[in-house]
Formats: sequence, C-alpha cells, structure tokens
Amino acid sequence: MTAHQIVLGLAITDGYGALHGSWRAPHVPADAYADIEATIRHARAAERGKFAFLFTPDFPAVRGDIEGDTLSNVMDPIVSLTAIARATERIGFVATGSTTFREPFNQARQFKALDVISHGRAGWNAVTTSDPAVAANYGRPVADRQERYQRAHEAIQITQALWGSWEKDAWIRDKDAGRFLDPEKLRPINLGGEHVASRGPLAIPPSEQGQPVIFTSGGPSPHLLTIAGRYASGFITEVWTIEEARAQRRMIREAARDAGRDPDEIKYIVGLMTTVAPTVREGLDRRIALSGGIIEARLPHLNAMLGLRLRPEQIDDPLTPEVLAAAHSSPADPRSGIALAVAREGWSPRDVLAHGVIDYHPTVVGPGERHADHMQEWFEAGAADGFWISPDIYEDGVDAFVDEVVPLLQERGIYPSEYPGTTLRENLGVPAQYGLDPRIGDGGGAR
Amino acid sequence: MTAHQIVLGLAITDGYGALHGSWRAPHVPADAYADIEATIRHARAAERGKFAFLFTPDFPAVRGDIEGDTLSNVMDPIVSLTAIARATERIGFVATGSTTFREPFNQARQFKALDVISHGRAGWNAVTTSDPAVAANYGRPVADRQERYQRAHEAIQITQALWGSWEKDAWIRDKDAGRFLDPEKLRPINLGGEHVASRGPLAIPPSEQGQPVIFTSGGPSPHLLTIAGRYASGFITEVWTIEEARAQRRMIREAARDAGRDPDEIKYIVGLMTTVAPTVREGLDRRIALSGGIIEARLPHLNAMLGLRLRPEQIDDPLTPEVLAAAHSSPADPRSGIALAVAREGWSPRDVLAHGVIDYHPTVVGPGERHADHMQEWFEAGAADGFWISPDIYEDGVDAFVDEVVPLLQERGIYPSEYPGTTLRENLGVPAQYGLDPRIGDGGGAR
Ligand SMILES: Cc1cc2nc3c(=O)[nH]c(=O)nc-3n(C[C@H](O)[C@H](O)[C@H](O)COP(=O)(O)O)c2cc1C
Ligand SMILES: Cc1cc2nc3c(=O)[nH]c(=O)nc-3n(C[C@H](O)[C@H](O)[C@H](O)COP(=O)(O)O)c2cc1C
Repeated sequence: MTAHQIVLGLAITDGYGALHGSWRAPHVPADAYADIEATIRHARAAERGKFAFLFTPDFPAVRGDIEGDTLSNVMDPIVSLTAIARATERIGFVATGSTTFREPFNQARQFKALDVISHGRAGWNAVTTSDPAVAANYGRPVADRQERYQRAHEAIQITQALWGSWEKDAWIRDKDAGRFLDPEKLRPINLGGEHVASRGPLAIPPSEQGQPVIFTSGGPSPHLLTIAGRYASGFITEVWTIEEARAQRRMIREAARDAGRDPDEIKYIVGLMTTVAPTVREGLDRRIALSGGIIEARLPHLNAMLGLRLRPEQIDDPLTPEVLAAAHSSPADPRSGIALAVAREGWSPRDVLAHGVIDYHPTVVGPGERHADHMQEWFEAGAADGFWISPDIYEDGVDAFVDEVVPLLQERGIYPSEYPGTTLRENLGVPAQYGLDPRIGDGGGAR
Repeated sequence: MTAHQIVLGLAITDGYGALHGSWRAPHVPADAYADIEATIRHARAAERGKFAFLFTPDFPAVRGDIEGDTLSNVMDPIVSLTAIARATERIGFVATGSTTFREPFNQARQFKALDVISHGRAGWNAVTTSDPAVAANYGRPVADRQERYQRAHEAIQITQALWGSWEKDAWIRDKDAGRFLDPEKLRPINLGGEHVASRGPLAIPPSEQGQPVIFTSGGPSPHLLTIAGRYASGFITEVWTIEEARAQRRMIREAARDAGRDPDEIKYIVGLMTTVAPTVREGLDRRIALSGGIIEARLPHLNAMLGLRLRPEQIDDPLTPEVLAAAHSSPADPRSGIALAVAREGWSPRDVLAHGVIDYHPTVVGPGERHADHMQEWFEAGAADGFWISPDIYEDGVDAFVDEVVPLLQERGIYPSEYPGTTLRENLGVPAQYGLDPRIGDGGGAR
C-alpha cells in the first residue's frame, strides 16, 4: 500500500454543474443532460487529474423547480457509467443504487457486469431511500427506518454473497478436457431475509478487483453506522466543518472496528464545491453571473443565520462595522460560522452568499492555492480521507481543477502523481474482497 | 416506408456460439463470455451485414450442465448492450427484461437511457418469467399465468406511459429566459395496477426514435397474443415449419388488428441456426468436431422421433432402404418431418443429427445459397418478416453469414443494401410511437 494520500471523486449529476444557472453559461451545451459525450469529456478530464472515481448520487424522481433549474441525476447511473467506462481507462465508478427499491439480484448482476466490463473499476453506493417522491415512482409508501435498514442489510449481504458465488478459480475453460466450469465452485447462496431473498448463484466471474467496492452515504445515524462499519470501504458525506467531520470520521472508524475490521479500510469522503478562478473576485463574479436570482432569494436565510436584518436594497453594500459587531453565528447551523468568517472579510451580502455559504457543501472560490489549502487542512486534521468534488460548471470547471489544484496537491506530496493501480480498490487503497467479508459479525446470514 | 424486406437480428448469448462445443474451437477465445471485446467484434460484423438488431434472450439463472456447457445469457443485457452501443453506430438492441422480476420504473428508466445514449436504437423484449430457477433468484415462487400476465400488462403500460411522460417539446432550454423545462409537459402518470404502480414522471427526453421499441416472445398463448397485439412491434419466436409459422404469424397479425392496430406494424421474427461452409459435408464436419458427445447422446431421441431402433454402433452407417422405409415422422413433433427428409437424403444417423434436427430452431448447414434459399422460401410464404440468427460459432460464423449469405439476399432484392435509417424503428419499418399507443383498447389505465 502507498502512503496515505488524498482520494478524489467527481460528482456526476446533470451534466451542467453545481451552480444553479450553470446550464445557462454561454459555453455550456444546453443539452448536456442527455448528451453522454459531454459527461465523457468531464470524466476524461477527471481521469487526467487522477481522480479515483466518478460518483453518481441518485434520487430517482423529479424534485424541485424543473422550470428554472436542471434535473439533478444522471439519466441512469448504470447505463451512463457503462458508457463512460468504454471511454476511459483508469477512473472508477461509484453508482448509487437503492437497497430499498432495487431487486438484490438485479443490483448484484448489473454492478458485477459493470465491474468486469470496466476491468475492476466499479463501486456501489448502497443507500436506503426515504424520499416520498422516489417511493411513489415504485408505487410504495416510504418504509420506516427499521424496515429500510433491515432490508439494506439483507440486500447488501445477498449482493456480496452473489458476488462471491462464482469462486475465484471456478472457471476452468479447459478445451481439451471439455470442462468449462467447476460446478463445485459456482454454488447457490440460499440467503433468505425478511424482505428479500435469493438462491443464486450469479454467473459472473471475478473482475480484476474481485468484486465491486461498497460505499454508503448519509448522516451518521446508528443504523447507517452499522451498515458502514460492516460493509463499506467508502463513506460519502456532506459536512460543513472540520470539527464535525473529525467526529463523524471517528464514529465511522469506530464502527468498522466494532465489526472486526481495520478502520483504515474505510475511506471517509467529504463534499467540496469548487470555483477555480485567478482571483476570488473573478470567482465570485463567475458565480454571481449564473446565480439567476437565487442569491437575492437567499438573503433572508443569511439574515436568519447571522441574526441580521438586511434589506434587499442593501445586498451590494459592504457590511458596516456595526452590523458585523451585531452578527453572530448560530450553534445549530454549522454553516453560520463560515458565513460569519466570510462576512468579516469585508464582502457585501451578495458576495458573502456567492461564497456558497448556504450551499450543500463547503465551497472554495478563487485560485488553486485556496482549494489546495482547504483540502490539505482537512486532510491533515484527520477530517477527511478524500473529497468528492462538485465543480461550479463541468464544462471548464473540471479542467480548471485538474490544471490549477491537482498539481499543487501533488507538489505537497498529499496526492498521487500517477494512479496507484488499475482497479478502484487499488486507487482507493482498500483491500481485496471476494464474497462476504468473513470478519463480519454473524458471518453471513441475511440479517 | 421501403418495400417489404427481410429484417435480421443476431442472437447475443454466451459469446461462443450455438454449437454445444463452440467454446472449445481452437480459434475461439476461451474467455469470450466475460470479454466484451469479443461480443463487440460479433456486433460489428452483424452491423457490416446491416442486421437491424442484436437480441439478448435472458433467463437470469444458472441452468443446465455448467461443467460441460457454457452459460447461456450475456452477463447483463443492459450493461452489455450499453457497452456495445458505444462501439457501433447503426445496429439496434433488443434486450430481454422480465416484467415479472424487474421494477417497471427501473426498467423504463434503463431502456430509455440506453435509447437516448444509442441515438434511438433500443428495444425491449418484454417477457413474463415462469422459470422456477429464475424466480428463486428473486426469492419468490413462480406466479400463475393469470398473475404474470396481469403484471405484464401493468408493467408495459406503466413503462410506455413513463416514456411518454416527458413530452416531445417539454425541453425548452432557453438560456436567456432561464426556462429549462416546461413543467406542464413533464407530468406524473399516476398509474396504479394490482401488482405494480408508478407516479412518474421519468426525467428522460425522447430519443431520435421517440421511445424504445417493444418486442415480446414466446408461444402464442391467448395471454401472450393479447400482449403482442396491443403493445409489440416485434414478436420473437422459435418455430420449426413454414406451416406452423404462417399460422402463428396470422394469429399475431390478427391480435394486432383486434387491438386496433395495422398488422404490418408487428414484425414476426423466427429463429434460425446457421453453419455457413463451402459444402454441406464441410459444414457437418465443423459441427461434428465440436459436438462433444451430444450427437451420440441424441440418438435415442432420433429413434423416438422417427420410430427407429438404431444402436449406438450404427451411428456412422448410412441408413438402409429398409430402415428408411420403416421410418415415419410423428405429428406431435414438427422437427420429425425435417429429420425424416434429411435422413432420406442418404446421410448416416450422425450426419442427420449434425444437421441440427434436434436443436432449438431450424438449422441450415452448407453454402450461403442454402441459407438464402431457406430464408427466401419462408419470407415469401408469409411465414416470417425476419429471422434471428444463432450462428454456430460467433467468432467466424457472423462474418461467414455476412460475406456469404447477405449478398445473395441483397441480389435477390429481399434484403436492404444499406440501413434504411438511423433508428431501430426505421430499420424495422415500424412507425414512430411516443407514450402509450392511443389506439389501444381501454386507452391506458394499467389493467
Ligand atoms: C452525501 C449524501 C449523499 C446521499 N446520496 C443519496 C443518494 O444518492 N440517493 C439516496 O436515495 N439517498 C442518498 N442519501 C440519503 C441517505 O442514503 C439516507 O437515506 C438519508 O441520509 C436518511 O438516512 P437515515 O434514515 O439513516 O436518517 C445521501 C445522503 C447524504 C448525506
Ligand atoms: C423464442 C423465445 C424466446 C424467449 N425468450 C425468453 C427470455 O429471454 N426470457 C424469458 O424469461 N422468457 C423467454 N421466453 C419465454 C416466454 O416469455 C414465456 O415465459 C414462455 O413462453 C411461457 O409463456 P406462457 O406463460 O405464455 O406459456 C421465450 C420464449 C420463446 C419461445
């Protein structure tokens, strides 16, 4: 294993970017959502930057404002990533697949087929789905947490068992003897749970990494910690502060230890939004140009976060010392501390908001160095093993990150200059696995 | 629309070929099952021959003799065909997807994503699944026919409604006005059946052909005829004689008429196994060399079919006039008439069996002309609109068919010299469709 270094993933969503109005930028193809060639360009740019993986979040439903905003998922994670696999060589694929709304056998089959076709580059982000809009697309009510997580355990164990059901040396392929497969080594799994079951086996051989890598994502509820601790090699999260992230990362490592695993085997990956620009001012202007009214709409939220009462017409006036003196962060919202710190740098409310202080993840705006500093600080504080990057605009934002940020990380010795290996496992630095992990608790009954 | 011409599909199965021992041929890569590059070669060869589509049958379970025989499915239809889509330009993809064991929303989403990514080349072979080995992989008992077909109607209607839920001109993409989508034209479907339901909408725009083409396959039970008549643009079948095929094709056309559709809109596609060789003798030798004991094992079956009592040691002796005089075909088995006709040509029992008389489909062995004659006869007798070809060995059998058979069909004017269009619909000669077909019976409630 190589030295502990940062792992990077690129969020693959709508084809446009993380800014509300990224699709409206003049240089962005308006049909990028349905044009796989656009996403392939972004994937290749990330591969140039030695990103370990592409990550497709997935809430399979139309949600939010579709008139003014884009759709937030790829058309289909498996189809999109399979197409991208054919156009790339090293980058991995972490596709979200619901344990709640997909059949374990279909899930196991498609992920392993992608793993084989991509020569060991697939990962599965195994999530439970509690979104009512998604549940409605499957004609079902939202299940309660207990049931969702019980089904998740069953689905993941069935999937991993199916992945192991074609044993490593099952495939004889002896033309002279006429022996294709060793029937002793392609065996049923016979796992039956309360919610899902499968007999198996799954007729797909090992990939170059054995089987796909399991990820999970969410907030660190006890239920999710158990999933992460037992099965996951990667944990994808959104978290705002180093303190919160360190605490969460510790919990997840502890959960792995509780399951009998080495905590270094689970990579804690935090979200980061990026605007790479020659100066902070230019970065803010790029963001403001594409904000399409959302910045103005967020002023009341900023007021609430900092205890202010700014009026819309004050949005471009730098905050006065009196206003700043009255401002305070709110312990309930981790973003408010960041917002306050930005405000104190002397920006106008519009500029404070353009810093992304009310966005989904910490946001860095400005030269590559600011991005590298942010990541290095988090990494060295034990707050993250890696980052999943949501660039402001895919079309040029991935290249800018790769050209301006990645070389700095490499110079600082905290990021690989070449892919460590050819498989996702090698590039994450997580160990080989095949079938269920034998170290895990009760050893494999779907429960 | 062009003149009525033959439509060709290529069965895509295990990567080796239809012969029991094709995987053992010296020129066949032993790992073709898991090597998508092999299947891409076969797909490209078929594309050179203007095949309209690749067809992946799919019984997602390990069945039969895996020690001596190969696995009969592709690793995964959607993953495999998506990968092939990236390596081809015109050929279409008809992937089998069970209405019994897949969630309609996932099915609708994956097929339409493949359709968009392949620029209008996707088709869905919508089948019900009654195989107990498959059902066990989903932890469920086999449903009775009534329930399977009820669910199939619901699943297909939900799928087509989801495909139509993003209306043709919904995607505004007006950067200046900031209008991405017209929310009036991306609407829920709210279809609820007894077994499956979905709210929608599905956030995938039309492809170049609108939406994927529906196929179905099976024997012509009244249940399946209703499915075919109402929804299918292609019917894939296995049938042994011209008489049987004509009767079946008539029933299917009638079913389309009953549903208010033009019967020319449903293409009846019959199976055909091929061994293209300079002479029949060379073709039989090629088949015998790879039969791996299966020919000997089938002698009792041949005896039963023809009312003979041949002993194993007689397998290489030409049939005597006395034996031939006593032989008779059995009305219960349509293959027996073919077997008898072949036997009367003076072959040994081994050679009779090597003609494929106990195989899944009619088999042609020998020069290209024999293949072209067979297809022309069926086509002109109204027994088929097209053929799905299972070559003996993919590695050279597709090229041989394309080089030796396709030019003859083209010379005879019954097969296109160029692809009629760029989409699967155009290349099948079936009309555009978007959403549910409004001509169909009760017009769209999932029932
Ligand atoms: C960063 C992050 C990414 C997530 N990605 C997905 C996703 O792509 N699809 C999904 O259905 N849920 C996703 N979730 C939701 C979680 O899987 C989970 O359903 C949610 O956090 C509620 O979990 P709980 O029931 O443990 O509270 C994500 C959550 C977080 C924090
Ligand atoms: C040529 C042909 C191809 C078929 N392909 C599939 C298939 O790929 N997967 C599958 O599950 N069933 C397949 N079937 C089975 C049918 O869909 C159906 O389940 C079977 O014929 C029983 O149907 P019934 O219930 O109407 O009698 C196929 C049948 C035929 C004749």
